[in-house]
Amino acid sequence: MARSLIIQMFILLAIYELLQQRKNDLTVGIILDENLLDAAIAGKDILAVNKVGTAEGVNPNFLLRQIALGHVVIMQRFGEEPIGIGYGLKTKINANIGSSTEIFDPDDEVEKAKVAERYGADTITDLSMGGPIDEIRRRISEETTVPLTTVPIYQTVVETGSFEAVTENDLLRMIRKHVVEGISSIVIHAGFTMEMLEELRGLRRIMGLVSKGGSFTAAWMLRKHKENPFLSQFDEICKILAEKDVVLSLGNTMRSGCIHDIMDGPQNKEIGMNAKLAKHANMLGVQVIIEGMGGHISPDKIPIYVNHHKAKTDHRPLFVAGPLPIDIGVGYDHISGCVGGALAAGAGADYLCYITPSEHLALPNANQVRDGVVAFKIAAHIGDTLKYGLRPEDKNLAEYRKAKDWENQFLSAIDGNRAKEIHLQDDTKTCSMCGKYCAISLMEDYLN
Amino acid sequence: MARSLIIQMFILLAIYELLQQRKNDLTVGIILDENLLDAAIAGKDILAVNKVGTAEGVNPNFLLRQIALGHVVIMQRFGEEPIGIGYGLKTKINANIGSSTEIFDPDDEVEKAKVAERYGADTITDLSMGGPIDEIRRRISEETTVPLTTVPIYQTVVETGSFEAVTENDLLRMIRKHVVEGISSIVIHAGFTMEMLEELRGLRRIMGLVSKGGSFTAAWMLRKHKENPFLSQFDEICKILAEKDVVLSLGNTMRSGCIHDIMDGPQNKEIGMNAKLAKHANMLGVQVIIEGMGGHISPDKIPIYVNHHKAKTDHRPLFVAGPLPIDIGVGYDHISGCVGGALAAGAGADYLCYITPSEHLALPNANQVRDGVVAFKIAAHIGDTLKYGLRPEDKNLAEYRKAKDWENQFLSAIDGNRAKEIHLQDDTKTCSMCGKYCAISLMEDYLN
Repeated sequence: MARSLIIQMFILLAIYELLQQRKNDLTVGIILDENLLDAAIAGKDILAVNKVGTAEGVNPNFLLRQIALGHVVIMQRFGEEPIGIGYGLKTKINANIGSSTEIFDPDDEVEKAKVAERYGADTITDLSMGGPIDEIRRRISEETTVPLTTVPIYQTVVETGSFEAVTENDLLRMIRKHVVEGISSIVIHAGFTMEMLEELRGLRRIMGLVSKGGSFTAAWMLRKHKENPFLSQFDEICKILAEKDVVLSLGNTMRSGCIHDIMDGPQNKEIGMNAKLAKHANMLGVQVIIEGMGGHISPDKIPIYVNHHKAKTDHRPLFVAGPLPIDIGVGYDHISGCVGGALAAGAGADYLCYITPSEHLALPNANQVRDGVVAFKIAAHIGDTLKYGLRPEDKNLAEYRKAKDWENQFLSAIDGNRAKEIHLQDDTKTCSMCGKYCAISLMEDYLN
Repeated sequence: MARSLIIQMFILLAIYELLQQRKNDLTVGIILDENLLDAAIAGKDILAVNKVGTAEGVNPNFLLRQIALGHVVIMQRFGEEPIGIGYGLKTKINANIGSSTEIFDPDDEVEKAKVAERYGADTITDLSMGGPIDEIRRRISEETTVPLTTVPIYQTVVETGSFEAVTENDLLRMIRKHVVEGISSIVIHAGFTMEMLEELRGLRRIMGLVSKGGSFTAAWMLRKHKENPFLSQFDEICKILAEKDVVLSLGNTMRSGCIHDIMDGPQNKEIGMNAKLAKHANMLGVQVIIEGMGGHISPDKIPIYVNHHKAKTDHRPLFVAGPLPIDIGVGYDHISGCVGGALAAGAGADYLCYITPSEHLALPNANQVRDGVVAFKIAAHIGDTLKYGLRPEDKNLAEYRKAKDWENQFLSAIDGNRAKEIHLQDDTKTCSMCGKYCAISLMEDYLN
């Protein structure tokens, strides 16, 4: 009798374990039986989707529908919290980090990644091109939890040593390697052709082509006299990504590099091409983000271009770098970019790539990463206020400010550490801004 | 014969000197026979107006007409370059500096004033309330050249020691003192009444009343049970200002202190009252700027409020502090404020008061003054791009960037010193951002 009870208990435990296992499986698309996009199209209950729904305060059925339509993607790292990017969700921000051929201390990059996560980056992109690239990526992966993106052509080019020597197979091999390692998303620049490059040459823009991954792809094409390798290998790439639910980010090669270079043929054609590729990738079970509108765009055109881009890409998640609405703010491009990002997000951009103070000048250090992240958290929050109306976070902070509850004010701020540091920069033990002549204190008795 | 030639020469020299003198007189309204506004209304040729026309690239006749209509003011310090603020002109920015009751080293304030001027503040406002206030103002005046503004009630209150002890005559005496010293502009909070204060009390805003000068004026009224002293003494104040062509800045007491406090009765009534006062002051020969829209306003409402304010004040020059489009950016309010300022300027605000990273937290130090000035130069430039279309400065910088002409890039930037510092932060002797994998370099041969 006792023995049969023990057996029964074991059976129950096994069932429980199985259920737990199934629950864990559902958190990560990676080990779902079918891929996340297919499951969403079939309207299945997906834990990752439910989690995003809870985090965002939106109905999971709404989310499933938006994922099925390609308007929202779920990005995640194995075993970590998933995030949603796209229509109806909070604007997300990405922080680019990574070594260059001149500066490549893995510790620095790990520190930058941790700083980016600490101050609120929703995703991190590792653009490393110098030093032990695999090690840097592995360590970033170990020491952070947010989704991680790469641009596999970077490592391929730097490790092969020349554009001429890189084969299409090398590119596929690198993509596969990153995917197997558990990368959440990869960027490829598949949306332009030799014909667009030729058209670009005829245009004589001031800044030509400024996308790094795009210029690598273009250099490969021009030196090897071949069509875009990501285009010819597109189905194969989608197959690799679909297997592990890795999000495809379609790069923005033709973006403008100064505000005097305005929307032109190649830029417009790339949007069209990326829209087609996105549709195709969706059919192959791959979730897609489209990069666009990045770079430098005069402020009046930002909302117009966002609407144009969204309409032309069937409202797929729009990823925007910046944009910078002026060029003369160099050294403070995180601030100019914050204005551009706020305008873009307000008009419907879903996902902003931060810009740091060192943009156009140097590889950012950890402090500059922090400045960039915070500036773009501000942009995203302003964008969300434009998209969705007044946000409760601001009301909370105002109420703590009114109550002169400094600690809770700092806790409610985007970067309360910095706020606290400034508040304590003098030894006055009060808010030294107005001292005893504080307007709030003066009017307190009368107004309350 | 030779003697008569010498006499003739002396006469010619005397006439030339006289003409030069006259020319100098004209640069400063202060020693014009009649005041600048009257001269502009009469369509006279005024050197200060011509100078502003040249600096702004606008026709002096257009300027004269706008000054006569009250749409533009000319602000100047004795013997220094005049600046124009208002319709059709570049957006200007003001930097607030000044000691507080806790922190009052004159050297610090002089340093802040110099930093503000160096990084492009068009005007400086000295808000000193601690230490030797007269000495601080005198030294700032000696060591800078841009127009200088004060809020005379600050010094009156701190020197008298209590609101109750301050008389209307004390306020007039302080205004006269600042004017005689050569201040370019003064701020008074004349646009609200006891009735508006009572209405405000009934509203239960989160943040109540946050204007410092406004709260001083209100505290005076409430404690002495008297109507607004600047209102009852308005004609006398105008007489003092008109004599020396000092610009009147009508303060914004009823502005909101958080984005959840939206436009309400008192705010709207103050705009109306300031509009009436401005018309009256113009008739008394006083040029007027109206402060408005400052504080905290959600980003969607910024352009709407600017248009409302401009229409309601007969399109008089609009001075805006910030505005801050969100509240949770504390510690980085110069960045949030840059977004708000850009939106406000783009919609028609003429003159932005900067916000520093230390807003709401502490008295700014010199570095924070620099950060605030640059952030608002960016806001003004974005605003001008929205007002007037693409600006040549950005094209210049882009061309230098394309040519990799670093020195000229720095010279074209708003704060080239900072840009240079960042560019040289690593010892790589190249742009460490991309190193040898620079997109511009890669595509150079193909595209040029």
